[in-house]
Amino acid sequence: MNDGRSKLSGVYSPVITPFYSDLSVNKELLIKQCQWLLSQSVGLAVFGTNSEANSLSVNEKIEILDALIEAGIDPKKTMPGVGCCALTDTIKLTQHAVKLGCFNVLMLPPFYYKDVSDDGLFNSYSKIIETVDNDSLRIYLYHIPPIANVSISLNLIERLKNSYPKIIAGIKDSSGDWNNTLAMLNQGWPDFNIFAGSEVFLLETLRNGGAGCISATANINPHAIYTLYKNWLSTDASIQQKNLDEFRHIVQKYPMIPALKAIVGHYHNDSNWSRVRPPLTSLSKTNLSQLIHEIEAIGYTMKGTV
Amino acid sequence: MNDGRSKLSGVYSPVITPFYSDLSVNKELLIKQCQWLLSQSVGLAVFGTNSEANSLSVNEKIEILDALIEAGIDPKKTMPGVGCCALTDTIKLTQHAVKLGCFNVLMLPPFYYKDVSDDGLFNSYSKIIETVDNDSLRIYLYHIPPIANVSISLNLIERLKNSYPKIIAGIKDSSGDWNNTLAMLNQGWPDFNIFAGSEVFLLETLRNGGAGCISATANINPHAIYTLYKNWLSTDASIQQKNLDEFRHIVQKYPMIPALKAIVGHYHNDSNWSRVRPPLTSLSKTNLSQLIHEIEAIGYTMKGTV
Repeated sequence: MNDGRSKLSGVYSPVITPFYSDLSVNKELLIKQCQWLLSQSVGLAVFGTNSEANSLSVNEKIEILDALIEAGIDPKKTMPGVGCCALTDTIKLTQHAVKLGCFNVLMLPPFYYKDVSDDGLFNSYSKIIETVDNDSLRIYLYHIPPIANVSISLNLIERLKNSYPKIIAGIKDSSGDWNNTLAMLNQGWPDFNIFAGSEVFLLETLRNGGAGCISATANINPHAIYTLYKNWLSTDASIQQKNLDEFRHIVQKYPMIPALKAIVGHYHNDSNWSRVRPPLTSLSKTNLSQLIHEIEAIGYTMKGTV
Repeated sequence: MNDGRSKLSGVYSPVITPFYSDLSVNKELLIKQCQWLLSQSVGLAVFGTNSEANSLSVNEKIEILDALIEAGIDPKKTMPGVGCCALTDTIKLTQHAVKLGCFNVLMLPPFYYKDVSDDGLFNSYSKIIETVDNDSLRIYLYHIPPIANVSISLNLIERLKNSYPKIIAGIKDSSGDWNNTLAMLNQGWPDFNIFAGSEVFLLETLRNGGAGCISATANINPHAIYTLYKNWLSTDASIQQKNLDEFRHIVQKYPMIPALKAIVGHYHNDSNWSRVRPPLTSLSKTNLSQLIHEIEAIGYTMKGTV
């Protein structure tokens, strides 16, 4: 979130999405989770990979966004994921986000077709920008090759920045490859906010002029991650980073999305959180017990639980 | 198409999708292409990978299907692709197909999330089947790991067949791996129609009890492919297969979807066909000239052009 720095920066969470037993979206519970995250100074990257966004239809996402704004959530504190396979879906969702005042959006490249060219990806982003046609739009590119299997190259960013200097506002780098993040940071692109895709690279990202991180585990560990973001110049920053790494290391031994939901469900004592949409499967009770045991052994508490 | 054999069989084309200059779907031209393919004895696997189906929204696909049926196309001769990332999208599209009498559907697994379990994929297909809840539904699984990056294993098929013996009706194997197709053929699953994902494996598929093929190049070479399908027991079947291979080998030196569209546009003298939706890019004029030169050098004509 923009908390005083000149550029958009901070810690965002790809907010996990709760479901009723018929697998429809439990908006009431989602709103609560969003409000809790905001109370922890964490922004709302709803419809991220870890939100199971790609298991939701565009209309479901539109209804969720409407519900959040209606519930009084500040659109400036959101960064909805709007990138779909189909050009027309991405346009529709982006138009709706912008209409609600959610100007900062995170945009996957179209990800079904593989081995596509930078020309093709440029044309895709370009067509979306020209059709949405709103000067307030700020696109954060979403580079996540391990899952999308479609990459956003430095050349593509450069070309997009040149054509749409204000609208192409940043990137989330979920490549897991620090060298790639560093290469982007070293470009010195003006008004381009680079977010690490996980808190593991938070300190290094900030030390190299980056904007923060958008991280799955911010769903469950927002306070500690935000604290490092806020105090990255402090003398114990490296120790804080080490603690964040240790926590994440445990969580990511388990399937990430089911683990996040199970942890939230456990501490909020709400079994609605245990559900995922297929093709994902819920965490087993045995795995949950073990995971809770492991994180509590290193002193984890869900600070600020509401 | 079911042309007298006891099981669904034949040659299907993932029908390419023409666009107007604003990239909206040119339904009129699509209907013409479908009618031409039917006149060549080729069935309509609309919304396949080569149809740019994943660059179309669910609503666009619904409107296309409505237009085809309204134009008098026999729903029994279609096999629409209905598998989307989002469970709710797949359910909506499948429900609509079934409502129109398009009971045979080709279903991608949900393809955004990677490394998903057979349990998760089973739950996905199961939830779709139980929600659509129509005894006439016939699902053809769509195994295309090079693009979807999510596989349909023999174990998963076995499990789905056991739970839904009538509804799980077959598969399109676009793995490009003949050993995988053969392994499925050798299972001897009753009432399970196995289609090769390209005509390269057509003769071997038929010799091993398979149903036919669903192939990109059936968009431009339907007559020759259907002729081999029809006469696979004839003495010159191997020569026919060799000729099909030679033709395909040339075409697939170029990006497949733009090449198919460019060839159809060239012979139908209609530049509407040259357009693709991003992230794809059109074939260059130079490449088109070269491609036409190469296929005509081996005697290609677009038989039955209307």
